[in-house]
Amino acid sequence: GEDGLRFQVDMVAAAREGGLRLIGPNSMGVVNLHAAMGMTTNAALEAPGLIPGPFSVISQSGTALGALLSRGQARGFGFSKLLSIGNESDLSVGEVVDFLVDDPDTGAILLFLETLRRAEDLALAARRAYAAGKPVIAYKIGRSDAGQQMAVSHSGALAGPDAAATAFFRHHGIVRVDTLEALLETPNLVSGLKPATGRRAAVMTTTGGGAAMVVDRLGLTGVDFAVPPASVVTRLEGLGIRVGGSPVIDVTMAGARPDVYGPVLADLLTDTGNDVVICVVGSSAQFRPDVAVQPIIEQGGGDKPLAVFCVPEAGDSLKALAVHA
Amino acid sequence: GEDGLRFQVDMVAAAREGGLRLIGPNSMGVVNLHAAMGMTTNAALEAPGLIPGPFSVISQSGTALGALLSRGQARGFGFSKLLSIGNESDLSVGEVVDFLVDDPDTGAILLFLETLRRAEDLALAARRAYAAGKPVIAYKIGRSDAGQQMAVSHSGALAGPDAAATAFFRHHGIVRVDTLEALLETPNLVSGLKPATGRRAAVMTTTGGGAAMVVDRLGLTGVDFAVPPASVVTRLEGLGIRVGGSPVIDVTMAGARPDVYGPVLADLLTDTGNDVVICVVGSSAQFRPDVAVQPIIEQGGGDKPLAVFCVPEAGDSLKALAVHA
Repeated sequence: GEDGLRFQVDMVAAAREGGLRLIGPNSMGVVNLHAAMGMTTNAALEAPGLIPGPFSVISQSGTALGALLSRGQARGFGFSKLLSIGNESDLSVGEVVDFLVDDPDTGAILLFLETLRRAEDLALAARRAYAAGKPVIAYKIGRSDAGQQMAVSHSGALAGPDAAATAFFRHHGIVRVDTLEALLETPNLVSGLKPATGRRAAVMTTTGGGAAMVVDRLGLTGVDFAVPPASVVTRLEGLGIRVGGSPVIDVTMAGARPDVYGPVLADLLTDTGNDVVICVVGSSAQFRPDVAVQPIIEQGGGDKPLAVFCVPEAGDSLKALAVHA
Repeated sequence: GEDGLRFQVDMVAAAREGGLRLIGPNSMGVVNLHAAMGMTTNAALEAPGLIPGPFSVISQSGTALGALLSRGQARGFGFSKLLSIGNESDLSVGEVVDFLVDDPDTGAILLFLETLRRAEDLALAARRAYAAGKPVIAYKIGRSDAGQQMAVSHSGALAGPDAAATAFFRHHGIVRVDTLEALLETPNLVSGLKPATGRRAAVMTTTGGGAAMVVDRLGLTGVDFAVPPASVVTRLEGLGIRVGGSPVIDVTMAGARPDVYGPVLADLLTDTGNDVVICVVGSSAQFRPDVAVQPIIEQGGGDKPLAVFCVPEAGDSLKALAVHA
């Protein structure tokens, strides 16, 4: 109520006078995995066995922070600093992003947002992050009317039209994702990379049926499919495999051979005819990680985004891929 | 080629003469979990420890069948009969659906489709399944141009416009889903139930932030949010919780109390003011399954669809929910 708000304003003023900055109210705490430091009221943030890594998270929802942490942990995702920012009476999301741009333990910054408060702070910080090569990736709710209403009642902030948020993110180089899961899948894909200049995807697969699913989905997003380079066409012709007529490079007929998979993948990663390489891995992800998963791990982390979809359930392979990304 | 096709036609004719029906070509096999019978060339279909259950699958892609099996197994999903149908030179998807309508071990029928062949068979069988109260749920690729092209080259079938497929499914009471994961999540939700007559959702939560995510997503699909019944309003008023102003019933402030959760859920499930109940479960799904997950398990399986979203990673709770659905 009004008394609470007056108390909040007084408290922030008093803290400022004393040279302190405040996080909250409604913060569930702060965790620094590299310093093994945690101050939190959220059970999930106390989970043992968390893996330190390059990804820092700022969340306006404490629950979402806990969810990201527990889901990320299950797939070997490495976290750096985690902040439940609360209602931003003093420190804003943008100010913390700005701080993380200079943090050597932070390689990418993940945001869970219910609303945009003090957007000018965030705009400036996002541009600094972009210049520093640290991707800022945001999942923001409030896309539907019901979601906006809910965000307002939950965080007390005013919500603007969602299209404005999309435009804001795009303008300031922030990657917007559409699901909570994508907030965990995107960082490894774009970390350390500038946004791709084109939208030509090369798809390599060990399963025709699995690739058909991926191509169908990608087609809906409007990507272009890259023509395979001559080196790949020749290499596979030698094994009796014809490629080029389909949007994918299907090496299934070569059998389960890492000595085929690795060189084809290397050709695609150096080919200037595509902007991103997507590997679809079939049952070998589950039973024979040496066939495709191992070459992918060895060759990932270069100058080009390399995405992987394991068609079967393959927790161990996903963890190995996450750790080595 | 042409010789192969002639051979196929001859083989089907010979089999028919001898009173046999054929599956394939390009089938990866057939598995019957209740009879512990498996004939397959797909490694995933040989996975030990598969759980028998009420859900049968027919897939035009062997890879997709393996993926559904391994992913379903990881979450405690129970399968009945699994068929890699191949190119349907003899037995069609529709004919097998028709057979499964009369199979006492099949409660719902899941389809992975790359194309619609002999759609009239499927139309008739789907209508019989509907009358028998067995949901037919389909994931069909070929939604994008690239996906259609791919489906054609992979299955050899002609692909029609995707909007026609959507209309076909709707007309014959087949539930179409948009992701492979949804093919595993929908059966437990709709099994044994007729399609809901309305689209009023009651949302109950133990986490405001988690519910905000769910409501935001639901809002995009155009559901209506149900007004809580008087019984729930009164019950929660007694605990100092006001509901009604927001689209959700948030019991967080009651603390972690199964004796509050159970009765509120029971009220919602019997309330005629909603058509589906959605439970959003926070960190208790991970650490205190007795609080919300247990009451949900006890009260699920009734006359109304009951959906659950566990916000954190909570594999054990998801498995428990799947097994008891």
